[in-house]
Amino acid sequence: MNGAQALLRTLVDQGVDVCFANPGTSEMHFVAALDAVPQMRGVLALFEGVVTGAADGYGRMAGKPAATLLHLGPGLGNGWANLHNARRAHTPIVNVVGDHATYHLKYDAPLTTDIAGLAGPLEGWVRTSASTEQVGADAAAAVAAAVSAPGQVATLILPADVSWGEGGTAGEAVPPRALSTVDDAVVREVAAALDETAVLLIGGAANRERGLRAAARIAKATGAKLFIETFPARLERGAGLPSIERLGYLAEQAIWQLGEAKHLVVAGTKAPVSFFAYPGKASDLVPEGCQTHVLARSADDVVDALERVAAIVAADVEPEVAPESRPELPDGELSAQTWTQVIGATLPEGAIIVDEANTSGLMLPMSTAGAPRHDVLTLTGGAIGQGLPVAVGAAVASPDRPVLCLEADGSALYTISALWTMARENLDVTTVILSNRAYAILRMELQRVGATEAGPKAQSLLDLSRPEMDFVAMGTGFGVPSTRATTVAEFHEQLQRAYAEPGPHLIEAVVPPLM
Amino acid sequence: MNGAQALLRTLVDQGVDVCFANPGTSEMHFVAALDAVPQMRGVLALFEGVVTGAADGYGRMAGKPAATLLHLGPGLGNGWANLHNARRAHTPIVNVVGDHATYHLKYDAPLTTDIAGLAGPLEGWVRTSASTEQVGADAAAAVAAAVSAPGQVATLILPADVSWGEGGTAGEAVPPRALSTVDDAVVREVAAALDETAVLLIGGAANRERGLRAAARIAKATGAKLFIETFPARLERGAGLPSIERLGYLAEQAIWQLGEAKHLVVAGTKAPVSFFAYPGKASDLVPEGCQTHVLARSADDVVDALERVAAIVAADVEPEVAPESRPELPDGELSAQTWTQVIGATLPEGAIIVDEANTSGLMLPMSTAGAPRHDVLTLTGGAIGQGLPVAVGAAVASPDRPVLCLEADGSALYTISALWTMARENLDVTTVILSNRAYAILRMELQRVGATEAGPKAQSLLDLSRPEMDFVAMGTGFGVPSTRATTVAEFHEQLQRAYAEPGPHLIEAVVPPLM
Repeated sequence: MNGAQALLRTLVDQGVDVCFANPGTSEMHFVAALDAVPQMRGVLALFEGVVTGAADGYGRMAGKPAATLLHLGPGLGNGWANLHNARRAHTPIVNVVGDHATYHLKYDAPLTTDIAGLAGPLEGWVRTSASTEQVGADAAAAVAAAVSAPGQVATLILPADVSWGEGGTAGEAVPPRALSTVDDAVVREVAAALDETAVLLIGGAANRERGLRAAARIAKATGAKLFIETFPARLERGAGLPSIERLGYLAEQAIWQLGEAKHLVVAGTKAPVSFFAYPGKASDLVPEGCQTHVLARSADDVVDALERVAAIVAADVEPEVAPESRPELPDGELSAQTWTQVIGATLPEGAIIVDEANTSGLMLPMSTAGAPRHDVLTLTGGAIGQGLPVAVGAAVASPDRPVLCLEADGSALYTISALWTMARENLDVTTVILSNRAYAILRMELQRVGATEAGPKAQSLLDLSRPEMDFVAMGTGFGVPSTRATTVAEFHEQLQRAYAEPGPHLIEAVVPPLM
Repeated sequence: MNGAQALLRTLVDQGVDVCFANPGTSEMHFVAALDAVPQMRGVLALFEGVVTGAADGYGRMAGKPAATLLHLGPGLGNGWANLHNARRAHTPIVNVVGDHATYHLKYDAPLTTDIAGLAGPLEGWVRTSASTEQVGADAAAAVAAAVSAPGQVATLILPADVSWGEGGTAGEAVPPRALSTVDDAVVREVAAALDETAVLLIGGAANRERGLRAAARIAKATGAKLFIETFPARLERGAGLPSIERLGYLAEQAIWQLGEAKHLVVAGTKAPVSFFAYPGKASDLVPEGCQTHVLARSADDVVDALERVAAIVAADVEPEVAPESRPELPDGELSAQTWTQVIGATLPEGAIIVDEANTSGLMLPMSTAGAPRHDVLTLTGGAIGQGLPVAVGAAVASPDRPVLCLEADGSALYTISALWTMARENLDVTTVILSNRAYAILRMELQRVGATEAGPKAQSLLDLSRPEMDFVAMGTGFGVPSTRATTVAEFHEQLQRAYAEPGPHLIEAVVPPLM
């Protein structure tokens, strides 16, 4: 078999059987090999940012990597921002980047670029496959690197001649790095520190049922305040699960939440820092005089560690869980509050919420706390334009679950062609575009950074209303049935229809900006 | 003044008075400073690939840099592909990338990335401004680097605290590196080598009137064959100018064009290499036994060098120039040929053609050779998705000239939101989307690389017809008046209307794929 076939064979042998792709000439043998290795599903996207964001969403929900297929340095560049988000989410991804044939590089043809140099700042695993004989083993190493605790982006650079050469063989599985078990001494130290002067901040794998239950038991038994990291990669929520507040995005809010804690226990995440720097404000959000205890780093088995702490401090304690409860359907126009109430009132069982609603979504957690069980995937790395692609990947990973993609208008435009892949693959994604026609978050940030000299030119640069965008037209252009809602009744009716019908839908929800 | 004001003041003092921007929180002081420095025009784009492509188009037409404004590493990532194209075009760009405050980096907040590492593979100039006091001088150095011969991407990383700090001063102009003058010995050697066994291949600055005329005189006097590089950054064409064939994109075509040349003279470009590698085919396209003579590298004064050669070999020779001539308007449906004839029959005087038509545009040069004088801007770096943004920048640089953007459907989707900036700025751009509903070039490449085992899964990954995209809906969604043409008559009528009316228009021209 040729190198491309050996690569695909290795991937599917090791459970990697979905490839999000935007190929070019140097990847044509990989594309051709899809027919030779029928277990691999190829999903076409029209832009590499959709490819990488979809791989992120897939990895978060499937718990195993998807492969990507990108075209040389520019393809990696286009996909870089969503790989950055995946990096922050610790999502396992086998990131395949085609390159020129090895012997062609010295000619510096127009598309020649330093692909490894571009991949370096993703701080994952990077290897260039040097020969057809080696590519199977390289692919196996890439899978192992991707799934090694806590998960990362593994970039495999695939020269065209390595792909088309004959003599490839499937690579043997390589054992990945497992989660580390936390020392007993650390567990005991943390158990001793937890009382009503303490804050427990959880993240990573602790954001799912077992971790949430253990953390909630600890909080109930010790009186410690409990928070979830600001931007979880995958958070399980809803009736029957502990309902735990997330630490706020705004430093002011996080400082208020942390209060005068004397002990901060971090588990599966890092001690909180401000998302951005602001003049005259601290970057480090840990209260003065507060001692930080690290129970588990991202590569540690945080769920086990929390359960061991709970066994010490909360042996017989049951966690508080959210009762079943949905908001009443309000009346009138859509607002920053009412649209979230409609979501809470109608959310289907088992939904996956992809949340890139930004300022429009501030009231969402309150409105959905008692809704049926669901997952929430958030913008882990701050690089906007991940919502629509992540929804694609989540829907491919979880074909039996409805996906609800809540997307700010400004962010939607970065990767809008994801809608086409939703239509092409007939994915059950309901996309709600929160259309406030502004970079609303930047209006707020302009004030927060103290840029008080801002005048009309500055304000104009944050204004998306000139001309108004028509997301119904755009969605239609990409083949997704699309409607617009300005009232609660319209939004409710359109949402119910979108949930009931198979395949993708788009609703442009016109919601005035919060600020 | 604060750092952001010092930066903007320095830029406008040195003639950089347009900034294409997609800002975030860390760039809010830069945004606010736009009101303090009114000479700077801020042009908002919804995606960084539009920002950087627009800066490329602007630089090619204005002959001086625009500034960009990008948001941290992910913003640079999103803009990277079109910076790669700009790098290959030698376009001067002052690429401003905001970063976290210097003291904030150590906290590794979610958006923290190695921006300099990401900029490195662009192989231009990179500097992080370390202090408010220094930022004016850094900006001056960036301008000098950008315009130093032959032009490059100069990336200035701007930490937020450098921006908001007080005590900035405008930087003094720094002398850029000028074009080098070619040695007389080289001029004489080339003059001696030029005869009917020679090929003269020109590029860079030689693609404009003076260079074209000198090269055409040389070819006429010596019998040497004359070609223009395959992907010129800016090529002047039309009636009254020498009409010179471009070297083909397909290696097979280029090899045929070069024939059995004994001498190859390259002037302002490099010796030809295959765009991609193909199994069993040479990457180096210089015929065997042919001697290559480098008259001028990209940083040399190629126009002067050509004129000096012409003075030796063609002292009294006038160049052949294209007579005024337009194709007859054909009848019937649009095809790969007829659509180009309509373009040739109607092209306005002084048009700027941005050509990313790819396979659909193969017959364009024949149809426009005798049209009124125009410029053609092409895909220099091979990273698709540059056409619409380059059209934005060209229109901002040349407000009195009509811009005609010829865009393949597959390529259009990478940076489709450029349409919104065209509408917002009321730019006189006529965008023609060549809608063949396929990655047609990849269908061809699948065969050319010998991927003969390709089956239905592979073919499906090159097919854009499922679902069909509706570019009229998309254009409308972004606020651009949009129509569809399937016949010559419709296309002709819509094109005439688009030229006649101010502001942007989009025409989806449904053209069957060539292959």
